[in-house]
Amino acid sequence: MINIRPMQDSDWKGVWQIIEPVFRQGETYPIFTDITEQGAYAYWVTHPSKTYVAVNESGTIMGSYYLKPNQTGPAAHVCNCGYIVGEDCQGKGIAKQMCQHSQDEAVKDGFLAMQYNLVISTNKVAVRLWQSQGFKLIGTLPGAFKHPRLGFVDAHIMYKKLQSH
Amino acid sequence: MINIRPMQDSDWKGVWQIIEPVFRQGETYPIFTDITEQGAYAYWVTHPSKTYVAVNESGTIMGSYYLKPNQTGPAAHVCNCGYIVGEDCQGKGIAKQMCQHSQDEAVKDGFLAMQYNLVISTNKVAVRLWQSQGFKLIGTLPGAFKHPRLGFVDAHIMYKKLQSH
Repeated sequence: MINIRPMQDSDWKGVWQIIEPVFRQGETYPIFTDITEQGAYAYWVTHPSKTYVAVNESGTIMGSYYLKPNQTGPAAHVCNCGYIVGEDCQGKGIAKQMCQHSQDEAVKDGFLAMQYNLVISTNKVAVRLWQSQGFKLIGTLPGAFKHPRLGFVDAHIMYKKLQSH
Repeated sequence: MINIRPMQDSDWKGVWQIIEPVFRQGETYPIFTDITEQGAYAYWVTHPSKTYVAVNESGTIMGSYYLKPNQTGPAAHVCNCGYIVGEDCQGKGIAKQMCQHSQDEAVKDGFLAMQYNLVISTNKVAVRLWQSQGFKLIGTLPGAFKHPRLGFVDAHIMYKKLQSH
């Protein structure tokens, strides 16, 4: 059983443990791979509106996601999320549960749509998962991401209307 | 004759005169229409890497644009620009000249591509202009922008490779 709840200050150590390897690897997020812990905290916790953690029955952090408006003003009704599942916690459906949770939270917060700005094309598991959750592949940016092993790869923009508007 | 050059501190008053009406109108930029002058300065000058002005022969500011990386890290080779032409200076090809200038500057700065994240679909002059400059319409975000008169309208993502990669 996974419980998803707002991140508390005391969770950061556990969150950093699972997001640091992903940031260092540099295959999925538009972040410098030498980002400091402080910089990662700003990116994952300070700048977004909200950050959540997915914990198992013993309270261990298995995943985390952030939620924020993707733009301001006349485009502030579209939100953006980033999700990370711990390397040892893959294949348990945690990303899917976080995605569903984030949509519920976004609707509660009045967002009308959710946008992923840069889904790396080589991250096929993510592309398939978001599509299964109703996200549409809006378009593909050619060579928009420099993969550490594969070089320049394409990135997708994905989008889902959460409420009619 | 239009000259395009880096913005100087003393240019801000003239830049604000042309960008304020556009921001207040709220039809093209994802900015709150009640943005303060200070907020607009941060958006147009502080946050971007560079800001330019287009001036006529008597030194009057006719237009302005900013240039910045669209993302960081493995996506930092894609830049983003925003262009505004003064209301009384439309139809003189200034936006086209600024777009061409920005591509040259972007290449000089090592960027490999340029992305527009939110080209409002009702801004048909802009869509046509960017297409004529070689930008591809990558995809369309349904209802991603709340137009002050037309309600929710679509927004396009446009993209151009500036150098092969």
